[in-house]
Amino acid sequence: MDDKLFARRYEEYRAAVEEYLDGLFIGSVPWKTLYESMRYSVLSGGKRLRPVLALEVARLGGSRDWRDALPFACALELVHTYSLIHDDLPCMDNDTLRRGKPTNHVVYGETMATLAGDALQPEAYRLIAEAPRLDAKAKVEATAALARASGADGMVAGQVLDLTDFGRDEQSLRLLHEKKTCMMIQCAAELGCAAADAPAEVRAATRMYAARLGLAFQIQDDLLDVIGDEITFGKPIGSDAEEGKTTYVDLLGVDGCKAEVRRLTDAAISALSGMEETEFLITVARNLATREK
Amino acid sequence: MDDKLFARRYEEYRAAVEEYLDGLFIGSVPWKTLYESMRYSVLSGGKRLRPVLALEVARLGGSRDWRDALPFACALELVHTYSLIHDDLPCMDNDTLRRGKPTNHVVYGETMATLAGDALQPEAYRLIAEAPRLDAKAKVEATAALARASGADGMVAGQVLDLTDFGRDEQSLRLLHEKKTCMMIQCAAELGCAAADAPAEVRAATRMYAARLGLAFQIQDDLLDVIGDEITFGKPIGSDAEEGKTTYVDLLGVDGCKAEVRRLTDAAISALSGMEETEFLITVARNLATREK
Repeated sequence: MDDKLFARRYEEYRAAVEEYLDGLFIGSVPWKTLYESMRYSVLSGGKRLRPVLALEVARLGGSRDWRDALPFACALELVHTYSLIHDDLPCMDNDTLRRGKPTNHVVYGETMATLAGDALQPEAYRLIAEAPRLDAKAKVEATAALARASGADGMVAGQVLDLTDFGRDEQSLRLLHEKKTCMMIQCAAELGCAAADAPAEVRAATRMYAARLGLAFQIQDDLLDVIGDEITFGKPIGSDAEEGKTTYVDLLGVDGCKAEVRRLTDAAISALSGMEETEFLITVARNLATREK
Repeated sequence: MDDKLFARRYEEYRAAVEEYLDGLFIGSVPWKTLYESMRYSVLSGGKRLRPVLALEVARLGGSRDWRDALPFACALELVHTYSLIHDDLPCMDNDTLRRGKPTNHVVYGETMATLAGDALQPEAYRLIAEAPRLDAKAKVEATAALARASGADGMVAGQVLDLTDFGRDEQSLRLLHEKKTCMMIQCAAELGCAAADAPAEVRAATRMYAARLGLAFQIQDDLLDVIGDEITFGKPIGSDAEEGKTTYVDLLGVDGCKAEVRRLTDAAISALSGMEETEFLITVARNLATREK
């Protein structure tokens, strides 16, 4: 896909997501500090990878208009944002910097940060349930997909493994990251398919693509924590090692990680081989494999 | 309603809720501490007021079988439970005792307690979305109702007001409690109606009943914090005053509170006047007004 065409479409999705998110949690209420704290993290930028994937998959799956899927895509981003806020809390990773900005609890205090994260979860399900141009079947499917990806056998399970010294060998580390990172990226594909009522072959292909992409993404993340540039990466380099966490770099080495990212990226791309118009998803995968932040 | 009949039906609902909840978060997974921490709070007893109300309203609203509504009723209880766990955290009320037992973070630590609460929210929406005998329309309605009651303009808004010295006069205190307590009790009626696809008059009557019941419940709670018995009540007496919180007792006095509980209980009961077979809900309201725990 032509670089300019890709950038234009990515930017179109990203701008639509930003605009949608910017319309949330505004108004003069007596609990406006909560709104501010939620907006601080929701609007702190980032690649918007998950919602962009959801929107592109909705388009590929046959949505009348990919904009119809915005509430689903942004619901996923709200849940992702809550997880980052709580991840950074003193009782979790105790991080003070995220995307180059002070973390939520540094700005709003631990109490408000906890509550902002707590409120983002139901707000995500509200967006799904209230989506104006999608039917009840699609909404129930999206609710179930998001709940499974982020719940006690999904993202939170991964967080528990991460904080309890699980993941000292490759198999364990892979389970940890499947739970903590990949299920939410896979969920992006599922939400896009739900919004589009996509045919079975699109569902199977995009789920597999997203699962492999998710793992490549995580290994690249581990790699950047070792060889990245602190300013570009937006968070301190070497934090994994400092926290005594086992990473893919410990297990595979820098070159081994690079090879594994390439292998998984190729596998993600080949999952799409039976589909048409997959250039955008292919470019997303290629770009993630060479990203520096 | 005959006391024995009432007790038998309440117990039937309560036992069904306990059995349903006891079937959740079991199995041998590498993140089993998370399951244990969730189950510790989910199965710590309590009156199960919210799910019992939801089940009775489902019955009144015309459910084929009130058991069909169990996933909705228990979803509400999961969200209620998450709110208690996070409420008790050191960065919130910092309570060590709940229902006569050590709070979740005292037993499992702050990190795991935070994560248990985090995981209970998506699990609630999963129960709704996966409910086996209810249709998509009912599930979307239930998802929206639960999300609004517990979200940034519902329970969490109330929690923010509670922790930020809002509520120094009766109007403010009422708004605080409407958000923090009443919306979730009202949600019980809404979930019951959603499960039953109840007619409009049942929806209106039970919502109003629940809203008034919720406020009576909260005033009684404030009262018990002053005049209750610590062992019976299950938590320390005088904790509101110690934390410098304004309560209804400060504003209305003990006798004023008792009168207000009676007035709201009568108002709750009169909201049901156009409906049949309301003896159970009437007895619930009467019993709550005279409860000691």
